[in-house]
Amino acid sequence: MVDNVGRAAVTCTERLTLTAVAGLPRIEPGDDLATLLSAALGAQGLTLEDGDVLVVASKVVAKAENRYVDLSTITPSPRALELAALTEKDPRVVEVILWDTLAVSRAQRNVLIVRHHGGHVSANAGVDQSNAQPATAGAASGPWILRLPADPDASAARLRSALEAKLGATIGVIISDSFGRPFRQGTVGTALGVAGFPALYDQRGLSDLDGRVLEATITAPADQLAAVCDLVAGQAGEARAAVHVRGLRFAAADGGARVLCRPVDGDVYL
Amino acid sequence: MVDNVGRAAVTCTERLTLTAVAGLPRIEPGDDLATLLSAALGAQGLTLEDGDVLVVASKVVAKAENRYVDLSTITPSPRALELAALTEKDPRVVEVILWDTLAVSRAQRNVLIVRHHGGHVSANAGVDQSNAQPATAGAASGPWILRLPADPDASAARLRSALEAKLGATIGVIISDSFGRPFRQGTVGTALGVAGFPALYDQRGLSDLDGRVLEATITAPADQLAAVCDLVAGQAGEARAAVHVRGLRFAAADGGARVLCRPVDGDVYL
Repeated sequence: MVDNVGRAAVTCTERLTLTAVAGLPRIEPGDDLATLLSAALGAQGLTLEDGDVLVVASKVVAKAENRYVDLSTITPSPRALELAALTEKDPRVVEVILWDTLAVSRAQRNVLIVRHHGGHVSANAGVDQSNAQPATAGAASGPWILRLPADPDASAARLRSALEAKLGATIGVIISDSFGRPFRQGTVGTALGVAGFPALYDQRGLSDLDGRVLEATITAPADQLAAVCDLVAGQAGEARAAVHVRGLRFAAADGGARVLCRPVDGDVYL
Repeated sequence: MVDNVGRAAVTCTERLTLTAVAGLPRIEPGDDLATLLSAALGAQGLTLEDGDVLVVASKVVAKAENRYVDLSTITPSPRALELAALTEKDPRVVEVILWDTLAVSRAQRNVLIVRHHGGHVSANAGVDQSNAQPATAGAASGPWILRLPADPDASAARLRSALEAKLGATIGVIISDSFGRPFRQGTVGTALGVAGFPALYDQRGLSDLDGRVLEATITAPADQLAAVCDLVAGQAGEARAAVHVRGLRFAAADGGARVLCRPVDGDVYL
């Protein structure tokens, strides 16, 4: 079921260190995140070395990319009105969710779970109402909501290139968002965009302690890392919107976060 | 949809440090894990302080608890034979899976996803064939498989008490297993048993940067932590079956990992 995934290994040295990058300013549309992150890292005495990973909250990427939508400008489509009635959500918000929706997975009261154009399945296509208000917003406008970055793998790649050029190290970049999960309560960080880091580690064919070949071991290092970075960053917004990760060994890998999305015909829960 | 969950906060200091506990011996039925873990920590110069968390792979807990099953002794039931034909799995393995199954979620070729008696939903009820072979196994017996710990929250609580008594610190213990996920490829560590640590952090009612009340923010710290510990531990089995976590702030919490299991009537994917 896994196609085009290399065996890009990710292993951990004895110790993995995750440091919250503090002191990012409130991010506004047009801000240069690489410059702001470099400054924040420097102010904290954090360097970037080859093999470090920077995990950045999708919210600050979306703000810098001006993914704001002023709901007062939105006229819901008939399909949005229908889904809004079913889910009891704001029809204007549902309209914006549908812009980013490839297919609806589940819709019922208080629940609208969709497959995003980018492949990721999440509640409300990741559209965010908390903290969403650009500084340039007029008093009479809004309320505002914030869509996910348009192409998180591309955003991660741009951020990686810019940071590598500034700081002279070969790193990985992960853009993470908080996702709910089927079966389990509570959100965890999830890799939405990845650059230079293996999102999947295909260990099939390696041997276990008894020399038995591992048959079904494919792990998701980008998600494993994104998950805990939500905990390190907390919910404080820009105050701690990035996490500096040191202690992994990996070779740069292409493929982005898209390889984490299960192909539609291999998913028994869509 | 979340019942009986306190607001037990889990926050991170500036830096979270995860250290692989190396040098555990091959675990056999009856082994005293707390003693072996204490020795391994000591040999590595690792101490336990108040607020540290130890994340332990469910496999070593299951081995110590002798959750092995010799498949040569198993006679599949009619229901196991039926599901085995559908999934193309070994009928004896399916029989053992059914021992631990409250309800089948999905069954089709190569897929058997069930809700475990303990509430967790996973492939094959977590039954494991890799590395599963007790040292006492005779040459003619087997093959062997390994069930999950019978009550992972109870196992975590016992391990926590024993470690606290030995090492004199108030800690959290998480027993983790690698789970696949709907929608996403690759496994991540998942909290199967929890003691002394808040599995969920209910942040509803707290304010965001704009003073807007967070409406739907419940995070899953135990899963966030378990996820990355799979990456730190790797797939090497006992060689790195535990991870020492320092840098969190939390108050001891009851409730175990069971609160992570979404109530059946609140799950749109079962």
